[in-house]
Amino acid sequence: MPPRYTRLVDSLPATVPFVGPETMERDRGAPFDARLGANENVFGPSPKALEAMRAADAEIWKYGDSTSHDLRHALAAHHGVAATNIVVGEGIDGLLGYLVRLVVEPGDTVVTSAGAYPTFNYHVAGYGGVLTSLPFRDDREDLPALIARATETGAKLVYLANPDNPMGTCWSGAEIAAALDGLGHGCLLVLDEAYAEFAPDGCAVGLPVEDERLIRMRTFSKAYGMAGARVGYAIGAEPLIRSFEKIRNHFGMNRSAQAAALAALADQAYLADVVAQVIGSRAEIARIAGACGLPVIPSATNFVTVDCGGNGDLARAMVGTLGARGIFVRMPFVAPQDRCIRVSCGTAADMAALEAAFAGALAEARDKVGATV
Amino acid sequence: MPPRYTRLVDSLPATVPFVGPETMERDRGAPFDARLGANENVFGPSPKALEAMRAADAEIWKYGDSTSHDLRHALAAHHGVAATNIVVGEGIDGLLGYLVRLVVEPGDTVVTSAGAYPTFNYHVAGYGGVLTSLPFRDDREDLPALIARATETGAKLVYLANPDNPMGTCWSGAEIAAALDGLGHGCLLVLDEAYAEFAPDGCAVGLPVEDERLIRMRTFSKAYGMAGARVGYAIGAEPLIRSFEKIRNHFGMNRSAQAAALAALADQAYLADVVAQVIGSRAEIARIAGACGLPVIPSATNFVTVDCGGNGDLARAMVGTLGARGIFVRMPFVAPQDRCIRVSCGTAADMAALEAAFAGALAEARDKVGATV
Repeated sequence: MPPRYTRLVDSLPATVPFVGPETMERDRGAPFDARLGANENVFGPSPKALEAMRAADAEIWKYGDSTSHDLRHALAAHHGVAATNIVVGEGIDGLLGYLVRLVVEPGDTVVTSAGAYPTFNYHVAGYGGVLTSLPFRDDREDLPALIARATETGAKLVYLANPDNPMGTCWSGAEIAAALDGLGHGCLLVLDEAYAEFAPDGCAVGLPVEDERLIRMRTFSKAYGMAGARVGYAIGAEPLIRSFEKIRNHFGMNRSAQAAALAALADQAYLADVVAQVIGSRAEIARIAGACGLPVIPSATNFVTVDCGGNGDLARAMVGTLGARGIFVRMPFVAPQDRCIRVSCGTAADMAALEAAFAGALAEARDKVGATV
Repeated sequence: MPPRYTRLVDSLPATVPFVGPETMERDRGAPFDARLGANENVFGPSPKALEAMRAADAEIWKYGDSTSHDLRHALAAHHGVAATNIVVGEGIDGLLGYLVRLVVEPGDTVVTSAGAYPTFNYHVAGYGGVLTSLPFRDDREDLPALIARATETGAKLVYLANPDNPMGTCWSGAEIAAALDGLGHGCLLVLDEAYAEFAPDGCAVGLPVEDERLIRMRTFSKAYGMAGARVGYAIGAEPLIRSFEKIRNHFGMNRSAQAAALAALADQAYLADVVAQVIGSRAEIARIAGACGLPVIPSATNFVTVDCGGNGDLARAMVGTLGARGIFVRMPFVAPQDRCIRVSCGTAADMAALEAAFAGALAEARDKVGATV
């Protein structure tokens, strides 16, 4: 007789949020030439972070510090908050899971945008939450509508990625702060700021950290170039941050990853250089797409969303024809954003590979879907 | 207004399973001379694992393979099972959390031993399970009683660490297989085999992997010397293993840690050498304790539990007096096992430090509690 799963688990689908590029590479029988589909940072971490990581590897026989003391204190100083306002976790994915677990019981309402981060939705479903998804407006998450719907429905959580994935658009921090005034009592805005370091002013919200309407998620996976290390953190009011202690996997953090994150944070000059390179690459992607007549959505992230036009068929075909040419990209899941492909910023070599493949991939994709230029 | 936590979260205490050694070192204002309290493997990982880890660090900008494909397949070959019988996770701690989430709803019964692994209890409480704890018998977890109680109470899970922590004792695989015949339908035995590589025959249970009464948890934290890497895995029937896909953090594994685990697994000669060193260190701990008249519990792990005698006061004092001398050890939580201290195996230098401190620490501890020799 099998184990007796919970009713909730029995009700869950066996789907996974993402198929990873390694799986795709095994399926296609060859590695990709340009890995531009997971919004990783090909420029990598600071050499100082890498050096700290390798030095810490020598002590990998020790468990990591379960309180991430040094990293939390450094992050607190960096953000001008107290260490008690910060919890470190296994990437934003891990922290989103903890947050949903803290507040969502079966039947509770959660609000997000249709086509926003699937892993958040996965966690909400995984704890029995009922997800309400609102359409994007003008290729941005519809902040006023999200707040209004959360308030109307008595939602416990409302999710906003700022800057947004998969479109790369953003709201200013001031707009977010203003919108919060309409948020219903006891509803928490989860601000996923994975890409904030790439945004013009970091989209700083400018509210006191003890404001209980807001929790901000940050990561070392994007601008700091350490996606494989799994280091994220959340910034919020002290009682909320403390509540994570009740449920989190206390010894879940990789020891070397913590050491590397500490060194990466200290090297803000390198970060600034990476951001400059990303901005350069954004322009390159726009140029490559533009040369084929495709416009791009202005991006505040380390990826550029290219508008292929039409009803989504062309973009879907284009992901395939680029993939067949060794260029890994992804695309938004939901109409009308699924008219686009999403291309992560890359090195000069990545951009050359993209450029070499782009026109042919587009022509073949147009052929496949019978699109006229 | 604060976020609206779930009723379950509101009911949870703010306690944590363990205070880590880094926290203790900050509190005492100095590092320990010998870190013998967390059952880490001071002999460290295979040099080949370390080399693979550092090589993989160069690609830390990439997310890790979300399916741990290569590692799962290598583990499958190693254990003579299919890759679909193995799930890789963020240490046994992470996997225990997932397992409890899969089966435990508020009010469900779970059976363990009083003084067994606190992190398992933490997860059970965290999902609202009702824990029944049975006493050890003759310093072993009482396997027949655990199985009987689980069956009587209709428990969904029963936990057994084999070899056991904190006593270092074990049951043979044949005894476990026989005991399973008495297990109630739909109850799952969680066999925590974190220390199995140190046990005489690995305590191999010898049942078909598709037996749905059993799930086995393994780790790279102990014999493989990579506690800071957070790599654990579970071996079980394919439907149960597949169910983890519904809830696990798919991109939660550190990329370099996966690469290192793969290399560590391939270096079984190094593993055998480490086990031999651990066995030598076990004898040293027994010798050092014995020189002061303290017997030890025969150990099948990488630690030795030293019997200080009495009601627990002496052992508690001894943890303090050894700590003050720079020797980090822990002790069992529950009587009568709390008459003991638990000393992890160490290098020759660690053993020299232990020996230099032991007699003085014991004398001071006896003074503190007024014990007579």
